[in-house]
Amino acid sequence: MTPTIGVFDSGFGGLTVLRALIQRLPAARFAFLGDSARLPYGSKSRRTIARYAAESARFLVEEQGADYLVIACNTASALALDAIQEAVSVPVIGVIEPGAEAARRASKTGDVLVIATDATVQSHAYAAACQARGLRALEKACPLLVPLVEEGWTSHDVTAQVFRIYFGELMADAASQGLTPDTLVLGCTHYPLLKPLIEQAIPASMTAIDSAESAADKLVQQLSQDLGALPATSADSQANPSAEPVLHCFATDSVEKFERLGSRFLGRPVGQVQLVDLGG
Amino acid sequence: MTPTIGVFDSGFGGLTVLRALIQRLPAARFAFLGDSARLPYGSKSRRTIARYAAESARFLVEEQGADYLVIACNTASALALDAIQEAVSVPVIGVIEPGAEAARRASKTGDVLVIATDATVQSHAYAAACQARGLRALEKACPLLVPLVEEGWTSHDVTAQVFRIYFGELMADAASQGLTPDTLVLGCTHYPLLKPLIEQAIPASMTAIDSAESAADKLVQQLSQDLGALPATSADSQANPSAEPVLHCFATDSVEKFERLGSRFLGRPVGQVQLVDLGG
Repeated sequence: MTPTIGVFDSGFGGLTVLRALIQRLPAARFAFLGDSARLPYGSKSRRTIARYAAESARFLVEEQGADYLVIACNTASALALDAIQEAVSVPVIGVIEPGAEAARRASKTGDVLVIATDATVQSHAYAAACQARGLRALEKACPLLVPLVEEGWTSHDVTAQVFRIYFGELMADAASQGLTPDTLVLGCTHYPLLKPLIEQAIPASMTAIDSAESAADKLVQQLSQDLGALPATSADSQANPSAEPVLHCFATDSVEKFERLGSRFLGRPVGQVQLVDLGG
Repeated sequence: MTPTIGVFDSGFGGLTVLRALIQRLPAARFAFLGDSARLPYGSKSRRTIARYAAESARFLVEEQGADYLVIACNTASALALDAIQEAVSVPVIGVIEPGAEAARRASKTGDVLVIATDATVQSHAYAAACQARGLRALEKACPLLVPLVEEGWTSHDVTAQVFRIYFGELMADAASQGLTPDTLVLGCTHYPLLKPLIEQAIPASMTAIDSAESAADKLVQQLSQDLGALPATSADSQANPSAEPVLHCFATDSVEKFERLGSRFLGRPVGQVQLVDLGG
C-alpha cells in the first residue's frame, strides 16, 4: 500500500514540512494545499480559522484521497486541530505537539525558548504544550523573520542582525525570570530556512528544534505503527536517489507567488500549482 | 457647513493620510474605515478588491454620511477607483494621481523613482499616472519596509540599512536605463513614518514625495472649489491648537492591532475603534 499524505497550510511556508516528509517517505504520494486566498489566518477569529481549516482538510481527504493529514501551519495547529479532527476520519498531526515533544527530549534544564509569529505566540499553544511536559517555556514573536525569508535574505547580514536583536531580548527576558534555557523551538514553518543562520547566532550549547522535522518524525512513527513497515525509507531513497515523489500542489489564490517562492521552501521544484476554489 | 470626510484603507496604514487631512482641515468631521478582516488586498483579484472597496465606500457614505471619500490605500486606488466612483455619488480621491501630480511639479529631469508594496508595483498604476504626465518612472517593490514600520523600527539602524540596499538597487537600475532621477515617490501609506530616515539616505538634490500629503492637498483644493471657503484652515488650528477633530474609526477585524499601532500612524490617539461587519 502506498499511503497518500495530505499536507495543509494557510500559505506555502508549510512546504518546509512537506520537504521533511519527502526526505523520510520518498515513495509516498503527497497532496499539498495552501489556502492562500484566505491568509493570513493569524488575524482572524478562532471560529473562522476552524471553518477554513476544516474545509481545507475535507478537500485533501475527500477529493485527494489523503490517508493521513499533516497540519503544516502553526496557527491552524494551535486553534483548529480539534475542528479538523472532527471534520475528517483520518489521523491528523499538527506541528505544535511534536515540536514541544522534541524540546522535552532535547532540554536538560527544562527551560525552553520559542520563537514564532505574533498569532502563534498570542495563542500560547507552544507554552501550553511545553508546560504539559513539565517544561518552562518563554515565547517571543519575531514578525520580521517571515518577510526576510520571503525576500530571500536567508543568509543576509541584515537578517543575522535582526535575529540577534530578537534573540538578545529573549535571552534578557529569560535571565530576568531566572530561566537557564538550553533549547530553542523554531515555531514557524518559515524558520527552517534560517536554521543555519540561527545555529551560528545561538550558543553552541543550545539546541535548535525545527518543528517541521519533529512533525515529520511523528508521522513516520504513526505510519510504522499502522502499516508495520514503511512504504520506503530514506535508506531506500539513497539506494535509488533519482526516484521522484508523487506530489500535487494546490492553492486557493496567488499561484504565481507559490510557484516563485515555493521551490526555495521545498528544496526542489514545486511543479505546476493547481488553483482550487473552496468558496468564500 | 461642516463636511464629513470618509477615509478608507484595507488596514490602518491610511491613517497617515488621515493625519495629513486633519492637519489641513481640523474643523471637519472624519470617519475612517480599515477593512482589516479582508486584508491584504494586494494578493486578491481585481474583481474581489473592487467588491470589497465598493462595500467599504458605501458604508462610509450611506451609514456615516461622508460627503467626500479619500481612498487612502494604494492597491484600492490602483485597482478599484472606478468601481468606488460607480458605487457612491460623492467625490472620490485616490492617492496615486495626486502623488504623480506632485512628482510632475517637483521633477526637473522628468525622471521619477517610485517605491511601494509588491501589489502596487505589479499594478504599474504609478508608472501609468507618471507617464500620462510626461514623466519617466521606475518602480521598485520594497516588501520589508511595511513590516519594519509595523515593528516600530522607524529610525532603527537596520531599517536604514534595508532602505539603502533597496535604494541602491533602484539607483543602479535607473543608471543602467540612462535615467537621472531627482524625485522619489513614497507610494505606500506606511512610508510617511520613514520620511526622516529616507530623506537622510537619499541625495540632498532629490525630493521625496509623500502621496499622503499630496492626496490631502488635492482634497483641500476640491473642497475650496466646492465650498468657496474651507471649514477651517491650518492657520485657524494654530490659533486654537487645542481644537480636537471629530473622528470616528471603524475596522472589520483586528481592533486590537489597530488601536495599538494606529496612534503612531495618526500622530494622536485613535480613540476607541468600533468593529463593523461588512459580510463576506
